[in-house]
Amino acid sequence: MIARVPEDVLTRLKAVLGPDGWSEDPDRLAPKLVEWRERWHGETPLLALPASTAQVAAVIGLCAEASVAVTPQGGNTGLVGGQIPQGEILLSTDRLRAVRDVDRLDDVLVAEAGLTLAETHAAAQAAGRRFPLDLASEGSATLGGLISTNAGGTAVLRYGTMRGLVLGLEAVLPDGSVWNGLKRLRKDNTGYDLKQMLIGAEGTLGVVTAAALRLAPILASRAVALAAVTSPRLAIELLVLAKAETGGEVEAFELISRLGVELATRHLPGLRDPLETATPWVVLIEIASARAGAAEAALEALLSQALESGLIVDAALAQSGEQAKAFWALREGQSAAQKPEGPAWKHDVSVPISSIADFLETASATLVDRYPGVRIDAFGHLGDGNIHFDILGPVGGDAARHASARDDGARVVHDLVHAMGGSISAEHGLGSMKTAEALLYKSPVEVAAQRALRLALDPKRIMNPRVLF
Amino acid sequence: MIARVPEDVLTRLKAVLGPDGWSEDPDRLAPKLVEWRERWHGETPLLALPASTAQVAAVIGLCAEASVAVTPQGGNTGLVGGQIPQGEILLSTDRLRAVRDVDRLDDVLVAEAGLTLAETHAAAQAAGRRFPLDLASEGSATLGGLISTNAGGTAVLRYGTMRGLVLGLEAVLPDGSVWNGLKRLRKDNTGYDLKQMLIGAEGTLGVVTAAALRLAPILASRAVALAAVTSPRLAIELLVLAKAETGGEVEAFELISRLGVELATRHLPGLRDPLETATPWVVLIEIASARAGAAEAALEALLSQALESGLIVDAALAQSGEQAKAFWALREGQSAAQKPEGPAWKHDVSVPISSIADFLETASATLVDRYPGVRIDAFGHLGDGNIHFDILGPVGGDAARHASARDDGARVVHDLVHAMGGSISAEHGLGSMKTAEALLYKSPVEVAAQRALRLALDPKRIMNPRVLF
Repeated sequence: MIARVPEDVLTRLKAVLGPDGWSEDPDRLAPKLVEWRERWHGETPLLALPASTAQVAAVIGLCAEASVAVTPQGGNTGLVGGQIPQGEILLSTDRLRAVRDVDRLDDVLVAEAGLTLAETHAAAQAAGRRFPLDLASEGSATLGGLISTNAGGTAVLRYGTMRGLVLGLEAVLPDGSVWNGLKRLRKDNTGYDLKQMLIGAEGTLGVVTAAALRLAPILASRAVALAAVTSPRLAIELLVLAKAETGGEVEAFELISRLGVELATRHLPGLRDPLETATPWVVLIEIASARAGAAEAALEALLSQALESGLIVDAALAQSGEQAKAFWALREGQSAAQKPEGPAWKHDVSVPISSIADFLETASATLVDRYPGVRIDAFGHLGDGNIHFDILGPVGGDAARHASARDDGARVVHDLVHAMGGSISAEHGLGSMKTAEALLYKSPVEVAAQRALRLALDPKRIMNPRVLF
Repeated sequence: MIARVPEDVLTRLKAVLGPDGWSEDPDRLAPKLVEWRERWHGETPLLALPASTAQVAAVIGLCAEASVAVTPQGGNTGLVGGQIPQGEILLSTDRLRAVRDVDRLDDVLVAEAGLTLAETHAAAQAAGRRFPLDLASEGSATLGGLISTNAGGTAVLRYGTMRGLVLGLEAVLPDGSVWNGLKRLRKDNTGYDLKQMLIGAEGTLGVVTAAALRLAPILASRAVALAAVTSPRLAIELLVLAKAETGGEVEAFELISRLGVELATRHLPGLRDPLETATPWVVLIEIASARAGAAEAALEALLSQALESGLIVDAALAQSGEQAKAFWALREGQSAAQKPEGPAWKHDVSVPISSIADFLETASATLVDRYPGVRIDAFGHLGDGNIHFDILGPVGGDAARHASARDDGARVVHDLVHAMGGSISAEHGLGSMKTAEALLYKSPVEVAAQRALRLALDPKRIMNPRVLF
């Protein structure tokens, strides 16, 4: 627990923020103090709502001087508790929402940290461009949070994670100084790339206040299909074929388990399985091309070749945008479809693509052996080696009992992931949830280096102190 | 100047390296102590030639203990003197050359730091893949150096710089500890991304000993053209059109000035200008596609559209691989073609793409005004905003006089680049050459952060102490 914040510090913070710049109103604070899955509840002496980079700098400067801890928060969509304060000042980016520039020659959008992903998409679209980071919480998730957690999503295969989409950053460092690294360059080799330290730092190295983001062209054709595959091994051969045949036009390559398809069609209104053959696994493929008709042609050719060579046993090609959305709904509805089945152990892991099949086989067999009756719902971004490996309790089983074995189950899964050279948090970060566990798997050399780097920028450890090493 | 290395430290270094692992032979040392343009000459008490990561660790560990400085060197192709020791121990990666693994499912090549880029290309090719970093010194440049300088080259537009091509690193940190970060994951959000600190750190944060590199598919069709354009502004509109029409299939978009074309055809045997119209600027475009014939069709369509809309006034499409090579030779021969014209001031700068035209106009006018008769040979990676802005002396002028104004001219160019939000070193790094100058342009906040981070990992500043901040 964090030490109580002295009253005079609160008074000075309120003064620099101005009357509209802070709140202690429990009703206003409430939604910011609970994570949306309700796994973390927090508390804070003050919600700071700076309206400018200068105000962020003033807040952090005061906190640094007084050794008072701060938790930055964007859209509060994080899944590992990193954004929920436990007594720290809560610094929200709600009022930092300006789109500062969009430039079609630079293919750049410059915007402030509090802009949502959906607003970012709209601003890019209005300039005839696309910001190619896509994830389900786009209506709430903000740029600052997406950058601070190096967000991934469904288009990483083609466009990379946030790390590859940020050309420049503006940030307030832990001593309250403003770093203006808001460049819009493709090449700049003049010392360490500081923005790479802040991306994925989960708010521990400062507050991202604005970013210059790389935009992509809007593509003329887009095609989506579901394919029925009998094993992850064949799904991966299909991925290899898709990458080779399209030369980088695969936008998404997602895996859904048979159980996942069944739960989605059972629990989510309007969803159906368009495939005639019920194989253990289904793959969703999206291809996009700049040439009209080219994506459809490429996807059709790919599926024909895959059917002929026995990689897949059935396929359904979306015949309209509506149908494409319906196919995606099967994949994106996976978390929602699990809810009526009781609590799930959720694992956001990645392994080398060459190890995915082994991982799924070994992890599933081990868990089923150890926890009889549990049901495996694996789905996710196969093209990135990123599996959301979720474990439901036995049908009709005791929900509380299943929930209570969550951490024990996680150890089994994460031990195996680690042994395969994987990651125990592919996209969601460590936050409050996984920091301690990550220490079991990181080498002492790496942890020491990370601690030294953090201490160098934040000697008083005021930035999100509960999070990371 | 670095303090003299104590004799007992040299003795201990020789012992850990073994009889084949070091040299004091002046003939063997000579080529490693001079930069290939002969702008830097160095000295060293010992050439260390470790044959394993463990030996690198032993060398660095001994040096850290004794506070003895080390300069790592790869293929000695650097252009800013970073690899030339001035009294430090010289640690060469010559004997770290193993290809540890190539995996077609992971699209990964794992190799040691001393492997050359050409050898890397060959190893990828043998596995049916491509490592998409291309630059002229591929026969000598090694992976460790390419990573430590975040190398760019001619395929950055599509594939990014080295920073985006490294999935994992193994490195010896400045205290002699071995960091095994040799992951091959597309997604891993478990704390700071240490490899991003080492990439582009110019050997100041440790010695990269091995890397896991991302591979790309070999594309079935490839087309190259030269286009005659009357201004950089129109060249940039052509770039915008090319990106929109091909959706990411532009592999290279290079600019050559008229003077550059003239010098290349005058001084380099066998080169000719295939364009009938002599415009002030020529653009080289390369498009590649996974589908047979598609690149040629896309490039033809692009050039037709550009001719029709008046973006270009003439174009030549290479009709064979030989011809494509001849077109590229015009671009790649630019440095060689300048040599008979006497010394050139060379500037490796980047600006936002939207500012390229303004930069070329203003910088050229300012220099010609200030140094009557100088000739501007601007060329480079237009698609990345990266211009090699080279200034030749007046025809028949005094070479020594021109050479003597080099630094003064650089200040004019770099001041303008800085004012436009650009970089004074787009690809080559800072090294010994530009570190002091970079301090004029970096903000105190950034310099302080960079120094703090360096100090955190290398408190005795033993790694390449002359380089960076």
